[in-house]
Amino acid sequence: MKNIAILCSGGDVSGMNPALKHFVEYSIQKGLTPYFVYNGYEGLIDDDMKEASYSDVSGIINRGGTKIGSARSQRFREKKYRDIAKQNLDARGIDMLVAMGGDGSFKALDIFYKESGVRFCGIPATIDNDINGTDYSLGVDTALNIIKVSIDAIRDTASSFRRAFVIETMGRDCGYLALISHLTSGSELCLIPEVDYDLKKYEQEFKKQIKNGRRYFIAIVSEGIKQDSSEISEWFESVIGMESRVSILGHIQRGGNPSTYDRLMAYKLVNKAIDGLLDGNQMSVICYTKSGFEFKTIEEVTSKKKELDPELLSYLERF
Amino acid sequence: MKNIAILCSGGDVSGMNPALKHFVEYSIQKGLTPYFVYNGYEGLIDDDMKEASYSDVSGIINRGGTKIGSARSQRFREKKYRDIAKQNLDARGIDMLVAMGGDGSFKALDIFYKESGVRFCGIPATIDNDINGTDYSLGVDTALNIIKVSIDAIRDTASSFRRAFVIETMGRDCGYLALISHLTSGSELCLIPEVDYDLKKYEQEFKKQIKNGRRYFIAIVSEGIKQDSSEISEWFESVIGMESRVSILGHIQRGGNPSTYDRLMAYKLVNKAIDGLLDGNQMSVICYTKSGFEFKTIEEVTSKKKELDPELLSYLERF
Amino acid sequence: MKNIAILCSGGDVSGMNPALKHFVEYSIQKGLTPYFVYNGYEGLIDDDMKEASYSDVSGIINRGGTKIGSARSQRFREKKYRDIAKQNLDARGIDMLVAMGGDGSFKALDIFYKESGVRFCGIPATIDNDINGTDYSLGVDTALNIIKVSIDAIRDTASSFRRAFVIETMGRDCGYLALISHLTSGSELCLIPEVDYDLKKYEQEFKKQIKNGRRYFIAIVSEGIKQDSSEISEWFESVIGMESRVSILGHIQRGGNPSTYDRLMAYKLVNKAIDGLLDGNQMSVICYTKSGFEFKTIEEVTSKKKELDPELLSYLERF
Amino acid sequence: MKNIAILCSGGDVSGMNPALKHFVEYSIQKGLTPYFVYNGYEGLIDDDMKEASYSDVSGIINRGGTKIGSARSQRFREKKYRDIAKQNLDARGIDMLVAMGGDGSFKALDIFYKESGVRFCGIPATIDNDINGTDYSLGVDTALNIIKVSIDAIRDTASSFRRAFVIETMGRDCGYLALISHLTSGSELCLIPEVDYDLKKYEQEFKKQIKNGRRYFIAIVSEGIKQDSSEISEWFESVIGMESRVSILGHIQRGGNPSTYDRLMAYKLVNKAIDGLLDGNQMSVICYTKSGFEFKTIEEVTSKKKELDPELLSYLERF
Repeated sequence: MKNIAILCSGGDVSGMNPALKHFVEYSIQKGLTPYFVYNGYEGLIDDDMKEASYSDVSGIINRGGTKIGSARSQRFREKKYRDIAKQNLDARGIDMLVAMGGDGSFKALDIFYKESGVRFCGIPATIDNDINGTDYSLGVDTALNIIKVSIDAIRDTASSFRRAFVIETMGRDCGYLALISHLTSGSELCLIPEVDYDLKKYEQEFKKQIKNGRRYFIAIVSEGIKQDSSEISEWFESVIGMESRVSILGHIQRGGNPSTYDRLMAYKLVNKAIDGLLDGNQMSVICYTKSGFEFKTIEEVTSKKKELDPELLSYLERF
Repeated sequence: MKNIAILCSGGDVSGMNPALKHFVEYSIQKGLTPYFVYNGYEGLIDDDMKEASYSDVSGIINRGGTKIGSARSQRFREKKYRDIAKQNLDARGIDMLVAMGGDGSFKALDIFYKESGVRFCGIPATIDNDINGTDYSLGVDTALNIIKVSIDAIRDTASSFRRAFVIETMGRDCGYLALISHLTSGSELCLIPEVDYDLKKYEQEFKKQIKNGRRYFIAIVSEGIKQDSSEISEWFESVIGMESRVSILGHIQRGGNPSTYDRLMAYKLVNKAIDGLLDGNQMSVICYTKSGFEFKTIEEVTSKKKELDPELLSYLERF
Repeated sequence: MKNIAILCSGGDVSGMNPALKHFVEYSIQKGLTPYFVYNGYEGLIDDDMKEASYSDVSGIINRGGTKIGSARSQRFREKKYRDIAKQNLDARGIDMLVAMGGDGSFKALDIFYKESGVRFCGIPATIDNDINGTDYSLGVDTALNIIKVSIDAIRDTASSFRRAFVIETMGRDCGYLALISHLTSGSELCLIPEVDYDLKKYEQEFKKQIKNGRRYFIAIVSEGIKQDSSEISEWFESVIGMESRVSILGHIQRGGNPSTYDRLMAYKLVNKAIDGLLDGNQMSVICYTKSGFEFKTIEEVTSKKKELDPELLSYLERF
Repeated sequence: MKNIAILCSGGDVSGMNPALKHFVEYSIQKGLTPYFVYNGYEGLIDDDMKEASYSDVSGIINRGGTKIGSARSQRFREKKYRDIAKQNLDARGIDMLVAMGGDGSFKALDIFYKESGVRFCGIPATIDNDINGTDYSLGVDTALNIIKVSIDAIRDTASSFRRAFVIETMGRDCGYLALISHLTSGSELCLIPEVDYDLKKYEQEFKKQIKNGRRYFIAIVSEGIKQDSSEISEWFESVIGMESRVSILGHIQRGGNPSTYDRLMAYKLVNKAIDGLLDGNQMSVICYTKSGFEFKTIEEVTSKKKELDPELLSYLERF
């Protein structure tokens, strides 16, 4: 009987709980003994792990966040703590690890593997969808649907009151959430870090639209652009001449009942990760691209910044 | 055949559209001709009104905001514009007005009535629920349910990540939204303008709870308290010793599909308002209190600041 | 130190979990020791009870259903089992009981009290809202909002496809859910057990509306009317001449994240129930009417069938 | 200037409105004049078409159903009516058609093209996801998320009350909705038309689970299986020995605010369809498979029954 453990590292996302549920079920189905590691790499260091059973994952499939906690770990950057982690895993007979997180988390595992030989498979999980080499990261679909509901709500009030709204989404350096939200909400403006912009370009068009009867504007901006959202809002007031408000969606984007799509991907990603480890994979990340699921090396995934799909970017150029 | 008009003034709320729908239907049922005034008092001044029919209100019952627009009007504060408003109403034979809005809007109508003799009935409508003399204002229930969803989502991520969240609700000087959200979300801290507080009081208790295993805190604070939300967040970090984030819910609180309760109250309030005007009421606000629906004078409604239900306030004192 | 227990009897509703949470917190605040009884009266008989603590109610405030289970109990109708229940309560030193349920559940408690002297307070809890003496029962608001979402969804498809939809709500002999859903969804027809109807009355009107361009009808019918929903649907097809479908909402009405209103009422009802028992109430039901909260006797609550608010009923007569 | 028209045929789905919005915008961007055809092929025959503008698609992106109506058309099966359709299109100078619908709708267009030379591109749109040659049809993701919410709600009540629930999803002969809902809800049983089953296989396992404490079962069954849902429910009662209820989700699956995924796919599918027609495609269906978007012939799409992804099917075999 082999032992396999799962942990969450970095920001939590909706979809981690369905992944935990399937991890337990599929491990047992494959004759493995599943373990939970609590609070990311901290749990490895503190030996905060336990064998997981069906009852641990009952009633969590519709819950946001992660039942086993997530954390960033400064200590795991130091070799002495990684050595402790290795000892803890050895003591429990765990030699396979599934890790849900972002590229920072994977880099740490890479180092750990090279030292310890503990094989692992990473599952991309971040609402920012900023991991190179995969089109999808766990949690993105739920985040997009939460943003959608918020934009729909704000549009109601914007159109009632003659106002411009500047809605700021998460995403760090990646404009994915903002771009998709723009395309799927029919907003009037979208600003993302990947595309340089000049507000002047929109001035004439927007003023013309107001003359033709437009009562409101919705601008979706990604948190990583060169200006603060409040500056965009100020531009609407002073240049376009429309009262404006900023709405920073913030952490509501991170939680909520996982969407069906994120649940299904959690299911499949866990399947692939466990199958890969059983097939002898040493260290890999299970990615999802236009070619379907494929294992990539840590190197491929973490070596460069993700670029947005050029086709999606082309949709931005409407004026 | 008598003519009756409806308008929205001040901030829009969810529930105005169901009210418009029932206004048209009930007016016609009572033998009146219903009119819409667009963009609040601005529409009175600009003669932006039209006779309303069933087809105008088709498909709006599940929409937030207001189809006829709302606005604040500086001009309506000047007698010369109010005179124009009166002329416009006379020209269309409209001598009864239903106005959805807050106490500022009602004060303006009071002056207008005294000059013009145009009878009106106010329907309290503000998510702040800060209108004296009524326990309920249109839109409050929808706003509370939107806040609920947001808090539920944030709790997922807070508990996953060992964090304190400071969630700021709307309400201006009134802590109603924050207080009810606190009671119904089981949050750990609630700060509202009506109740003076000293964070020191919570320090020992919160530290004890962390020792006993608490992983997160949710604090609901009303926008009108003496400190910025960021200061509360800073207190969690520096004094309580837990990483903390602020989430300002903002304008998402204002929109969204109206709840059943707000729809039902819209129905009843419109019924009462029209019945009141047909019974000869000169100027009143239709309020909802523990005694049921009752008409109150503008004086009663606008003369003093609303006080929160002492019973609700008593629930705050848990420590 | 006194011991107090809570149980759920009959159909579960959304709002029971928030009530359980507040029951634990408020009991402890009042110096009482709270107990959970599992699976209704069955748990009394089987001694399936346990002392409840904060951790038992963590994370349940946003969950439908009831964490402690509910059940109907045939055995509790027999004296020998009620005697066992009394012994079990005595053994644990429990002499106060809070029971969430419907009138059937309250009648059983009435008998039990007269035999055993175990004091209790009933909290009306049923989505049917069919309990005499109270305008509100726990769970009704959540059920109404779930129905609302379903009707909104069905209207989309009905209007796209030229169809009549007959939507059947729960309610047993009480038309409350159907009536309120009708008023708040703007449906074209509402049939409830309390009001006799003759479909002939609508025939001419509906045919006229189709001629004038109406593309769809929504009929809300309560499960307790004299005809099957399929017969109403058949009437639309054969008499009105419009393709028709039946949608029986069924058990989705019963679950879901409790609405803010139901959560707040759960809070208040538990407060009142515990306060009443501490004040020496022997056996009562905490009701909510136009006069606010008031304790009523079992006799008052169970002696006759609830009648719907005449004002609400008057809204039905539109033709 | 060229003219291009869009129509919906067969059952409506969520996602058609976002598609209409983008159709208008992208057509204009490409220098085409967009037309709406109302009520499917009926509108072609009755010349119920109009040039569409931005204002026609304002505020519809978050609406289920389709603003231009959908219908099945018996008349379009007769050549004389197709000839009329052709004349109507000629009179308006429309020689390109985008059609959202299922395979039945595409077959009809095939015949029409061969007679009339009107070029067209089909967009697969059906919640059943039963169109051969494409992994995705518009509306499927929204339907899955509605089903998810319903199952989550029913699970609450099932677990509270010791009950088995048999939840019937749409899908006609295709078990896709049921299968994905099963995988993403963690239900205990899934029955679909594609996989023969013998309930006996589950008997021993389910009884064992009850002995081990299981309080409820959720069974997801597709409408096309060999038995009625009531028979499955009866099996739970008589063989497994657990009270059981059936819930037929029905038409609520069809409506609702389109999910972000369906909105994004609507955007892309419309883009591809218009691009294809501008590139000279004669008659094709724009499909989405593991290889991305690709045009397929009507022959490929309608010649055989869709088979479910073998990998998905393999997930069913848990016992």
